[in-house]
Amino acid sequence: MRKNILLTIEYDGTDFHGWQKQPHAETVQGVLEKAVSFIFRQDIQLNGASRTDAGVHAYGQRASFIGDIRIPTEKIASVINNALKTGNYGKKAANAVKIIKTGEVPLDFHARFNTRGKKYIYRIMNCDDMAVFKSNYFYHVKQELDIDAMRQAAEYIVGTHDFACFHKAGGKEYETTVRTVCSLKVIENHMSEGRKIDIEIAGDGFLYNMVRIITGTLVEAGLGKIEPNRIAYIIESGNRCNAGHTAPPQGLYLADVYY
Amino acid sequence: MRKNILLTIEYDGTDFHGWQKQPHAETVQGVLEKAVSFIFRQDIQLNGASRTDAGVHAYGQRASFIGDIRIPTEKIASVINNALKTGNYGKKAANAVKIIKTGEVPLDFHARFNTRGKKYIYRIMNCDDMAVFKSNYFYHVKQELDIDAMRQAAEYIVGTHDFACFHKAGGKEYETTVRTVCSLKVIENHMSEGRKIDIEIAGDGFLYNMVRIITGTLVEAGLGKIEPNRIAYIIESGNRCNAGHTAPPQGLYLADVYY
Repeated sequence: MRKNILLTIEYDGTDFHGWQKQPHAETVQGVLEKAVSFIFRQDIQLNGASRTDAGVHAYGQRASFIGDIRIPTEKIASVINNALKTGNYGKKAANAVKIIKTGEVPLDFHARFNTRGKKYIYRIMNCDDMAVFKSNYFYHVKQELDIDAMRQAAEYIVGTHDFACFHKAGGKEYETTVRTVCSLKVIENHMSEGRKIDIEIAGDGFLYNMVRIITGTLVEAGLGKIEPNRIAYIIESGNRCNAGHTAPPQGLYLADVYY
Repeated sequence: MRKNILLTIEYDGTDFHGWQKQPHAETVQGVLEKAVSFIFRQDIQLNGASRTDAGVHAYGQRASFIGDIRIPTEKIASVINNALKTGNYGKKAANAVKIIKTGEVPLDFHARFNTRGKKYIYRIMNCDDMAVFKSNYFYHVKQELDIDAMRQAAEYIVGTHDFACFHKAGGKEYETTVRTVCSLKVIENHMSEGRKIDIEIAGDGFLYNMVRIITGTLVEAGLGKIEPNRIAYIIESGNRCNAGHTAPPQGLYLADVYY
């Protein structure tokens, strides 16, 4: 029976060359398409909501696929997870990718084109010394960050703006670089391992590298290198050179996708 | 000037083929010897305290080396860490290995032969569902473990015994399989991610796979498969087949080495 299935996927992006299928590199989409095609004995193409970069993680990536599906929808997650664990998809697939939810959606639904918004979390470890076990999962910032300055800077970013300044120069072309950031929270947590700072950002869409450049800019505000009230000018300028650095990929997590 | 230097090393063993140097596989010793030999411009051999297996981690591995060392001892850690980060030793070396302490020791000191004891921590995540981000760092046990049963079982293990039953069958030959376990604690922690159980074990020495087999046996006690008071019999039998399974490598951390 022809069905359209929406997967919610958690993955550790450390050892993958990002989400998107590539001919000679291991990617999350590549591994999952192989497993799903094998399970349903047909060539299946996954439509992912977001093309996360190499090293970027997901708490809740989404991908939809259409096929002749005879397994009850509620069983698909465990069937795929079992195939990933026991099939010949490598250690990465077995340990680093997990379907956490499945649902049936209308046949004309597409996980990327129907997206209304997304939430990302960027995780920073702000301490002098970080254990090696954290290095694939956090951006390590040694100097103490001024959280109030970061929060003040964040306020200028919330809203509907032309975000060309937070868009990787020479990157993808877009029809428009206007986006709406619905919320941008800077959350502090004191853990035994040190001070953690999570940047939670939700919006209707994000330009290439936008979350990582916003994070780099907020970090520079937290370090006193950029005055918070300068953010309005940076946005207005539309110039990538005025914004902060691009934070590294390993701190970034695609947290949720809204439909 | 000829000096003997003792390093304390933290590493994430996930992507290494263990500690010990091998001709065609990346190991922690291999990577470190390359870096240290390059820094001091001489062939340097590291003597590691413990030959941890592939996937096993260290909070505090020790290794000593003798050489003509002209860098002040207190600067050696940062010089090596910098070389690991910036040299051509690969992403693993840059992110997964860190010298956390250095000290000068007498020339006749050897990090392995002078060991008086070691501490290991074995980390279990005891919850129905574990995030993929934890899979390289914990043993995931889904069924609820009875912590009291584990603690009762642990009491039989503390002390001086012939531990042949906790020694990998067909593994290394030892002059004696008698060892002293000085302490064995089962520590419970409720975290937002789930229930964590740490098994902390210290002793004068450990047979091959001993900590992992003890862990497997305690887990089976926690699952009700082995009665705690049966442990005395298992030890007495000296038979590996009577003990529990070998817990997987990724939950094991070499925590400390005593001299």
